[in-house]
Amino acid sequence: MLSMQEALLALTRYWTERGCALAQPMNTEVGAGTMNPATFLRVLGPEPWRVAYVEPSVRPDDARYGENPNRIQTHTQFQVILKPEPGDAQELYLGSLAALGIDVNVHDVRFVEDNWASPALGAWGLGWEVWLDGLEITQFTYFQQAGGIALTPVSVEITYGMERILMALQRASHFKNIVYTPGGISYGEIFGQAEYEMSRYYLDEADVPANRTLLEVYEYEASRMLAARLPVPAYSYVLKCSQTFNVLDARGAVSPTDRAQVFARIRQLAGGVARLWLERREELGYPLGISAEPAAAVAAAQRPGSAGPATLALEVGVEELPAAEVSSGAAALRDLLGERLAASRLAHGEVTTFGTPRRLVAVVPDVAPRQEDRDVQVRGPRVQAAYGPDGTPTKAALGFAGAQHVPVTELVRVDVGGVEYVSVSRRETGRPATEILAELLPSVVSGLAADSNMRWDAPGLAYVRPIRWLLALLGDTVLPFTVSSLASDRITRVRHGARATELEVAGADGYAEFLRGYGVVAYPDVRRQMVMQQASELAAGVGGGIPFAAEARLLDEITDLVELPNAILGHYEERYLDLPHDVLATVMRKHQRYLPVRRPDGSLSPHFVAVADGPCSQDVVRAGNEAVLRARFEDASFFWRADLSVAPAEFHAALGKLTFEERLGTVLDRAQRIAALAGDLADLVGLPEPNRAALDRAAALAKFDLATKLVTELPSLAGRMARTYAGRAGEPGPVAEALYEMELPRHADDDLPATLPGALLSVADRLDLLAGLFAVGAEPTGSSDPFGLRRAALGLVNVLRAQPALTAITVSRGLALAARHQPVPVAGDVIETTTGFVIRRYERQLLGAGYPHASVQAVLPVADAPAIAEETLAELAKRADGEDFASLVQAIGRVCRIVPPGTPGEYDMSVLCEPAEIALHEAVTRMRAELGTAQPSLASFAAAAAPLVAPIDTFFDRVLVMAKEPELRAARLGLLASIAGVAGAVLDWSKL
Amino acid sequence: MLSMQEALLALTRYWTERGCALAQPMNTEVGAGTMNPATFLRVLGPEPWRVAYVEPSVRPDDARYGENPNRIQTHTQFQVILKPEPGDAQELYLGSLAALGIDVNVHDVRFVEDNWASPALGAWGLGWEVWLDGLEITQFTYFQQAGGIALTPVSVEITYGMERILMALQRASHFKNIVYTPGGISYGEIFGQAEYEMSRYYLDEADVPANRTLLEVYEYEASRMLAARLPVPAYSYVLKCSQTFNVLDARGAVSPTDRAQVFARIRQLAGGVARLWLERREELGYPLGISAEPAAAVAAAQRPGSAGPATLALEVGVEELPAAEVSSGAAALRDLLGERLAASRLAHGEVTTFGTPRRLVAVVPDVAPRQEDRDVQVRGPRVQAAYGPDGTPTKAALGFAGAQHVPVTELVRVDVGGVEYVSVSRRETGRPATEILAELLPSVVSGLAADSNMRWDAPGLAYVRPIRWLLALLGDTVLPFTVSSLASDRITRVRHGARATELEVAGADGYAEFLRGYGVVAYPDVRRQMVMQQASELAAGVGGGIPFAAEARLLDEITDLVELPNAILGHYEERYLDLPHDVLATVMRKHQRYLPVRRPDGSLSPHFVAVADGPCSQDVVRAGNEAVLRARFEDASFFWRADLSVAPAEFHAALGKLTFEERLGTVLDRAQRIAALAGDLADLVGLPEPNRAALDRAAALAKFDLATKLVTELPSLAGRMARTYAGRAGEPGPVAEALYEMELPRHADDDLPATLPGALLSVADRLDLLAGLFAVGAEPTGSSDPFGLRRAALGLVNVLRAQPALTAITVSRGLALAARHQPVPVAGDVIETTTGFVIRRYERQLLGAGYPHASVQAVLPVADAPAIAEETLAELAKRADGEDFASLVQAIGRVCRIVPPGTPGEYDMSVLCEPAEIALHEAVTRMRAELGTAQPSLASFAAAAAPLVAPIDTFFDRVLVMAKEPELRAARLGLLASIAGVAGAVLDWSKL
Repeated sequence: MLSMQEALLALTRYWTERGCALAQPMNTEVGAGTMNPATFLRVLGPEPWRVAYVEPSVRPDDARYGENPNRIQTHTQFQVILKPEPGDAQELYLGSLAALGIDVNVHDVRFVEDNWASPALGAWGLGWEVWLDGLEITQFTYFQQAGGIALTPVSVEITYGMERILMALQRASHFKNIVYTPGGISYGEIFGQAEYEMSRYYLDEADVPANRTLLEVYEYEASRMLAARLPVPAYSYVLKCSQTFNVLDARGAVSPTDRAQVFARIRQLAGGVARLWLERREELGYPLGISAEPAAAVAAAQRPGSAGPATLALEVGVEELPAAEVSSGAAALRDLLGERLAASRLAHGEVTTFGTPRRLVAVVPDVAPRQEDRDVQVRGPRVQAAYGPDGTPTKAALGFAGAQHVPVTELVRVDVGGVEYVSVSRRETGRPATEILAELLPSVVSGLAADSNMRWDAPGLAYVRPIRWLLALLGDTVLPFTVSSLASDRITRVRHGARATELEVAGADGYAEFLRGYGVVAYPDVRRQMVMQQASELAAGVGGGIPFAAEARLLDEITDLVELPNAILGHYEERYLDLPHDVLATVMRKHQRYLPVRRPDGSLSPHFVAVADGPCSQDVVRAGNEAVLRARFEDASFFWRADLSVAPAEFHAALGKLTFEERLGTVLDRAQRIAALAGDLADLVGLPEPNRAALDRAAALAKFDLATKLVTELPSLAGRMARTYAGRAGEPGPVAEALYEMELPRHADDDLPATLPGALLSVADRLDLLAGLFAVGAEPTGSSDPFGLRRAALGLVNVLRAQPALTAITVSRGLALAARHQPVPVAGDVIETTTGFVIRRYERQLLGAGYPHASVQAVLPVADAPAIAEETLAELAKRADGEDFASLVQAIGRVCRIVPPGTPGEYDMSVLCEPAEIALHEAVTRMRAELGTAQPSLASFAAAAAPLVAPIDTFFDRVLVMAKEPELRAARLGLLASIAGVAGAVLDWSKL
Repeated sequence: MLSMQEALLALTRYWTERGCALAQPMNTEVGAGTMNPATFLRVLGPEPWRVAYVEPSVRPDDARYGENPNRIQTHTQFQVILKPEPGDAQELYLGSLAALGIDVNVHDVRFVEDNWASPALGAWGLGWEVWLDGLEITQFTYFQQAGGIALTPVSVEITYGMERILMALQRASHFKNIVYTPGGISYGEIFGQAEYEMSRYYLDEADVPANRTLLEVYEYEASRMLAARLPVPAYSYVLKCSQTFNVLDARGAVSPTDRAQVFARIRQLAGGVARLWLERREELGYPLGISAEPAAAVAAAQRPGSAGPATLALEVGVEELPAAEVSSGAAALRDLLGERLAASRLAHGEVTTFGTPRRLVAVVPDVAPRQEDRDVQVRGPRVQAAYGPDGTPTKAALGFAGAQHVPVTELVRVDVGGVEYVSVSRRETGRPATEILAELLPSVVSGLAADSNMRWDAPGLAYVRPIRWLLALLGDTVLPFTVSSLASDRITRVRHGARATELEVAGADGYAEFLRGYGVVAYPDVRRQMVMQQASELAAGVGGGIPFAAEARLLDEITDLVELPNAILGHYEERYLDLPHDVLATVMRKHQRYLPVRRPDGSLSPHFVAVADGPCSQDVVRAGNEAVLRARFEDASFFWRADLSVAPAEFHAALGKLTFEERLGTVLDRAQRIAALAGDLADLVGLPEPNRAALDRAAALAKFDLATKLVTELPSLAGRMARTYAGRAGEPGPVAEALYEMELPRHADDDLPATLPGALLSVADRLDLLAGLFAVGAEPTGSSDPFGLRRAALGLVNVLRAQPALTAITVSRGLALAARHQPVPVAGDVIETTTGFVIRRYERQLLGAGYPHASVQAVLPVADAPAIAEETLAELAKRADGEDFASLVQAIGRVCRIVPPGTPGEYDMSVLCEPAEIALHEAVTRMRAELGTAQPSLASFAAAAAPLVAPIDTFFDRVLVMAKEPELRAARLGLLASIAGVAGAVLDWSKL
């Protein structure tokens, strides 16, 4: 059995033999090998660099007293940097797994999207976590930026998680059991005591004020060293800042706002370090040289295609795409290619595209061998200039005819926009499809783009993952072209580990079937079907099933994570079913992409289906996946047990240890503001008992679960855990429910609070957030919205939209109430600005949801009360096609247009003299009586105002509003203004 | 060429193949691999442990901006721990050098005494620095204690200095030129920038208050974690304390007192960590098992020796002894063996012993084959009990006779102390020498002891280095015995790297010659002669010479550093001769044990003689040694240049940054106290001009060189550098000289100040030290004297002894003056206590110097004025054999004995009546007149008092002192008391 130290030495040997310098771990605590200057500083600038080293990485947050089998506060990373990225880093990496004895034909090794960003280092990259039988064993990243500086060339970072690899290889069920030395000394023996004790330090004992002092001193020294232009010591202190911050975080002394602020400061320092380092390297003249750009590719020679129509196959070969990008990539390819072909005058069949994680394929049948010939009219000089007064061709005409190779006598006259030109009609021979396509396809390839794109060693290209090969066939013929450093060919690649991974493809026809023959199921639908069938069978085998409808999103993801689905049934211990099933399912789905198997009654059965990619040993892969899940569940259990030992009220009090925002106090302060505000709002809407009691109790515990370990670990469970823990602690059902609902909606498609206490807390939460952060000037700018204020604004609106009982709470009124509780002065215009912000979000949402633009504009005046806006919109939609309403709109519209803004809706009726205006006055009076004093809904207004249509029309027909007599004019305008006033409170009629 | 990273991997491979676990560098800055918990914690307790790892070790003090070719702030250690020490660690180590391609037959590889102690870790061990051609490449230590805990079993620590090894192997002249990767990336490229920048931080930029804060916080957390019983996090903070302390030190913000205090605190913390760790391991039941004790040795069977006298050869084979222990070990062996043989009744020739670094040998010719036979008298019961009243033998007699195997009739009577016993006379046959010696030699071996002894894997033995083999031959016969795990044999060992290192020895005769045949020169005298001859020839070859008389101590050391001297001439660049030659010579002698070559005029010639041990390549070894010296000189140059750019007054002001003692202020405070006190003392002794001006100026600069870099680095140059720098800065000669002399005497045999300003400053320095530290209760206890107060006391006495011009300064008066300047209250009895302490040191010194005990006791009353005591002792010695003086002593002694203490020396002469007493009165009156009022010296007193002898004798003959009449008795006692008073001020006559 390979011991851990042998594994470390094997990797060291493997990578040093591949040109990596051997570095040592950083001599200050770091959270990851990336932070070692051998990575962070060396990926900057143009110099080539290859390095490998071990990095014991300290994550105080992962401390578990050594009890969790898989989670440890110091884990051993093996870190590799290849700069520039060599184009075959995946293959090199798989070679290193082989050096560790990992056979990719036995194990399920996969590259699963995992984009990496270190806010503290101003660094990010795109890449994967590499899964070994469901276990994340490596982080594989194409570095795009470090210290806020774009990286050219791009580096590949490969970070092995050694404990995980060894646990998998040795089938160890606990990290302590890893065999560390060939002599049999265990990992637990070497590191166990430290694991326990450092956990104690990080979780329980570290002195918070002492560590705050350290953080201050480290920042101070880092800043000073930047000022002294010494990036190396500055960076050392940046790392110390980061570690100390992590210690504070593990001690629960850091709020999200704290985090954002400290990260910002550290990021600034790290950016300073990076810039200084780059300057220094430049001054030194880049001692390691400058990385060569990759050679531009050379296209093969054009060869004639077949005489008849042929199938076009274009395959864009990529490194593993994120699951979500497979379908969107295929769609983009279809659109792009379709567009280009449409513009090409090349007859062709329908463009079909499909994708797998490693390829986007377009197939177009019946592509004509060449364009149709066609007549084209070539326009020459104007007739006036073409012929002399005597009708003889001028030099211009002769020149044109000469250039067109026709006798001047063949010039004809054409009329263009009333001007006559001479012209030649010419037969244009269609160009061969091979030529056209070779010209067209490069722009298709380079036109591919995802939401988030990366650069790699192909200058000028950017895509979500590196494009590594291009297959382009028209029938049996290669369409030769180049894009950046890539040249098209007839070579495709199949799965890593296949006997031959590069295959020559004879022709475009039946390309999908060709791939199928090599274990690549090209069509997503087929893969999806395979997953469902295999998973159903496996689940049925243990008396369970999988509700695919409910798992549709996960199913899509799984489908696009594999090229050849290979479902494997796994099992976990029954005892974990004692945990909330929400937690278990979240863990299975989110972390592992497992389909949870359910019993006929809908409850969880202790099974899951993992879907491996292609052939592998079912037993090995099952065992691996089960071990991973066990570790995940252990982790959740740890938090669950720990949380259950603490009362909600205690957690609530502990919120006082989390800073929310420097000027806005702690999270506890915020929770208390929310509670007070919810009380105000309840008073405003007159919330009756027993709702009021439930609200008050829930308000007293508001947000307590943010202090729980499970929510700290899985923030998506916020609210849900509050409900669960509150229930367990004996809180009444409505209280628990309100605590859950106050977090709703968590995202755009989320549920909304169903109960009034829940809705009030939800509203109060969002109002407090908006009022507070706008008051301190922390509103969103550009793409930056660290506090999620846009989401909060929408949430607020949507809750209010859905709860007519809360209509009394308008956005502006709510914000004004919220403002009263803020610990900072809320300047006069802040409420207005914030209200405007919320209403703009609402407006966009409505437009996004497909409401007619005019309707949306029309309801904006009542958008401050979203429930009313909602009702109004619904009413508008209902009445959209009604003629009566159209008349009303027209009539009111006329009224509104003629009344200058600000005209009071009062008038001296005694001045009115014309029958039409008197009739209108009487109609208005009736309407007002009908509507009463309350704010009318559109429906009631429309009903009440319908009788006005005729009098208004008559009025405009018969009466001159702008009478010469001022009194009369004023009275007529006042009459109309009184209508406009009532109508304008319902909607903006001018927009309809 | 082996790159550095290949070398690291080669060592990793070598040691992991030998059972070492692979550990990682510590993830917090450490000064040495020893501090890694894989060493510090794991050497504790009984569990076996083998580990190897790289440790980038940070020594802020060694920062040189990357300019010095050989000195760097972060150097790469490769660290190995073998626990228990395996008995062949040296051979394993040499095997690792071979793995690096180092051939011990080409290079000069030596184990040179270097005992290691880490005051901060409460750790120490004995061992060597391993020299490769004069370059220290490895520290090799048998750990004896860690965290204040004795280590059982003992571990071997092997610490490679990788940069040095690689520079030597690659012949790199600067560390930056080391080839680091096989691809040719240099060390400078990888580490150069960090080296420069971290140097800037450590030397210039680190913020002192910020680092003091860090030190405080780290100590706080370390203490808290100890209280929480968590040794691992506590230890991590102990390491941070240590590093931060080193940063402060490098910034010049640490005084020796600071150092002692911080070390004490860190040591206490480290001790706490060690104890806790041990407890934890015990609780865990020692998971790695308990190291087996080495098997007890089995002695070979006895074999008969030859019939005639034979030579005894005993060789105690050791690992390399410290040079000083070779001769003292040989002497100890001679004494021990001589004693035992003398008690053995075995005829033998003279015991001769001699030694080399690896063996102590005793040769005894003509050892008789057996003891002489002899008659012995065996005593039985008393005659009274042996025979009945009728003379018949009793049962007792019969029993005794039976036990002695003689007929009862053969019992004879013997008289013992007046009592008669029966007795048997028996002939005892002498036992064979082989038996006697085999019994006797173990105690000789185990009786060997040096000043500082170590334990190794031989239970019950302790010696300065491990004893590894025992050769014991009587003629051709092995004398079989065992000591601990060692058994005697006929095997010896010769130099590492010889074709056969273990040799069988045929017989004891000509053993030294046998060794000589294998390249071991056993006789030190011969080696010394060889060194002198070889060195002289080499020096003469470059027109120089070596003043061996002046280099006697170094010559002795060199002689005992090698088994086969191989002198090699080296050269250094002329430009270094611009440095003070004191500095160059100190560096050559102290660090390198090179003999400096001098020109005929006595100045340094740019050559040195290094003495290698045994055969090697002269060129390789020369080049190596030259490179080492170059680096050493570079270092000294760096300091020298830096120091010259600063004025003495600036350095003096910088003393304010060094804390001397918390309560006693900074070193500057102390320097100013010394200056003020020196002024007081000058007033006291009436120091005339121009001495006074020189004193005042020197006092104003006192101790300035403690702030210079060269003295910080080479503290033994304190004073000397003050003189040099002051001279360079244009200070007058007497001022520069006084600055030098104030540091004298630096040790027991040192020069004393020759000038009065120097002497006054020296005295003031020591008085201030004593008064201040006694005042704050920091007097020495037991073996602990961190401030060197014992040395200071003796220095004070010796300066005063040597300077009669300073007689007015008594110890107590000086201390009283010093007390006035202290920043703390000096309690009433402190002056007295301190004076007593000084005088006790003086007393011991005098006794140690061989003064008669009585004389020393006699002068104690005047020891407060050492010059007077000195004069008195000289006078006593001169008069020791004089009869007149003996009479005077007797007479004065009689007087002193009869006078009760406290009797006033006044009397009413009118009461005196006897002629003898009147005569005595008159004689006393004459003496008093002659002596005057000044304190008489012994000489003047003896001269003046000589006429008293006769009157005193007559007085005692004729007069009854204790007369019945009280008045008369009082007058007579008063008369005698007046003599005793004058005499007692001169010395204590009663002690003579």
